[in-house]
Amino acid sequence: MQEFELISHFFKGRGVARKDVSLSIGDDAALINVPENCQLAVTTDTLVEGVHFFNDIDPKALGYRSLAVNLSDLAAMGAEPAWISVALTLPKAEAQWLEQFTQGMHEIAEYYNVQIVGGDTTQGPLTISICAKGFVPNGCALTRSGAKNGDWIFVTGSLGDAGLAIDSKYGKVTLTEPQFNAANKAFDFPTPQVAAGQMLRCKATSCIDISDGLIADIGHICQMSGVGAKLFAENIPLAATVKAVLPQEHALNYALTYGDEYQLLFTVPEEHRTTVEMTLKQYGVELSCVGQITNHVGSVELTLNGKPFTLEQAGFEHFNDK
Amino acid sequence: MQEFELISHFFKGRGVARKDVSLSIGDDAALINVPENCQLAVTTDTLVEGVHFFNDIDPKALGYRSLAVNLSDLAAMGAEPAWISVALTLPKAEAQWLEQFTQGMHEIAEYYNVQIVGGDTTQGPLTISICAKGFVPNGCALTRSGAKNGDWIFVTGSLGDAGLAIDSKYGKVTLTEPQFNAANKAFDFPTPQVAAGQMLRCKATSCIDISDGLIADIGHICQMSGVGAKLFAENIPLAATVKAVLPQEHALNYALTYGDEYQLLFTVPEEHRTTVEMTLKQYGVELSCVGQITNHVGSVELTLNGKPFTLEQAGFEHFNDK
Repeated sequence: MQEFELISHFFKGRGVARKDVSLSIGDDAALINVPENCQLAVTTDTLVEGVHFFNDIDPKALGYRSLAVNLSDLAAMGAEPAWISVALTLPKAEAQWLEQFTQGMHEIAEYYNVQIVGGDTTQGPLTISICAKGFVPNGCALTRSGAKNGDWIFVTGSLGDAGLAIDSKYGKVTLTEPQFNAANKAFDFPTPQVAAGQMLRCKATSCIDISDGLIADIGHICQMSGVGAKLFAENIPLAATVKAVLPQEHALNYALTYGDEYQLLFTVPEEHRTTVEMTLKQYGVELSCVGQITNHVGSVELTLNGKPFTLEQAGFEHFNDK
Repeated sequence: MQEFELISHFFKGRGVARKDVSLSIGDDAALINVPENCQLAVTTDTLVEGVHFFNDIDPKALGYRSLAVNLSDLAAMGAEPAWISVALTLPKAEAQWLEQFTQGMHEIAEYYNVQIVGGDTTQGPLTISICAKGFVPNGCALTRSGAKNGDWIFVTGSLGDAGLAIDSKYGKVTLTEPQFNAANKAFDFPTPQVAAGQMLRCKATSCIDISDGLIADIGHICQMSGVGAKLFAENIPLAATVKAVLPQEHALNYALTYGDEYQLLFTVPEEHRTTVEMTLKQYGVELSCVGQITNHVGSVELTLNGKPFTLEQAGFEHFNDK
């Protein structure tokens, strides 16, 4: 199959068609109209077979997940996702695989009203690199650098099941099939917290999505904001499967150190705490207050019921992980 | 070396810093201010080792070329390049290789005032995927779809040396070392026709960059514009090396069918012809009138000194090429 036919068949003319796109797939570049008084938010995430996913992943899940992780970055900025470019490198052009892969991608794209405006399909080892673009009103973007001493630390959703599924694949923990399927859903089909991110504009002082693990990611906020943090492990929201199958301390290791969860981790000053809690809960966003920002620059203290708690593993690094 | 150190050392705080970038590398997304009354032009190109370049390529050339091919797409839209995101997949993190690679990329980025606003570095088979963004005043972008019967077909620069260098690598032609080095410069360090693209705004009726070969690319214009074309092979500008080492008919095959040249191919109506020729030549852009648009929809006729001329090879397709 020729490259151009391949692209046009599975991408061109399918999925969302936004009014702010003047020219989409099929020319040298796409032409987009960014709304007035808004900044463009741009992020890129790459998924490589064997590094970011196993080679037996469901192609539909891969298509879904590839876009979800990018939308999660836009969510962490408080941006409204709008347009994506997809660079797809494939060992071969298999129609059935592409059909399922693009079905997964179109599904999440439609849910968030995101248009695929362009991309590139090349032959090579399976790699998906997406550049996602969205917009945010001038001055309203959430960054990692605004956390202040005394701010409360919040996290959306619950944590630990994606990591549990990965370890089960590696044979490090034993799960029944229903347990694995339940946990693996968190890995295959993460839900980017797009609405939550937008509701946090002008209220959260900092925000990040959990892609490296909660401990590592609060560390990024502390570093960029020039602050420290204390975390109360007993408040960490454990996901259903990890909570059911493991003792609390072991489960907390998954919730605190495994990445690939794509929940939002953010800080809120005391004066906005009640508003944020009420607003997000009204919209059905699960929310937990897991700690507080301190002035011990660079220090992340972790306690469980008032006593120091030590983790078995910290953070997630691609180049260390192999 | 950890992923974050790797990214920050070679990209963060280096190269161009544009005033329209509010937030660059280091947060969940970059924040960009697109100029008022302008459209955003977005393009993505991926280069995979063994498909788009040989594994002995000079890392500096690879860094340069990866960005050049993307800027060429923006040039073909008449857009001003401004911001790029770089997704870099590497087998391992070698400081010396990265130093040279980023030096090549920073060099061309600085020349065109382009800022690297973000990206992602992952472990895997060597792949470079860049999403390049620029802007163009509302309604002034050049597309592939406006060519009209009678328009003149122009090409910038000269053609054939990049293809000659590739065939020499494959052992299909024999070149002396100086000949190879001269030809290979066209492959390693292509010059995107950024200024020419901007000068063609509101004058050219269609434009494309030559990445699939002149014959294939005029075919794309014909298809998108619903027209045909006749090409005069004797007017095709042959690059110095291919012209010196091969007989005309053989040289023309390189100039007409090999991609990877990154010159602009565009159409101009009679009333703008003189202005375009004078303007581009004043700015030192080499320009050749190589044919004329016809109303024979989808047909590309090729003659050499008035007689039909048949090519040995047509177009360039990644999935066919291996």
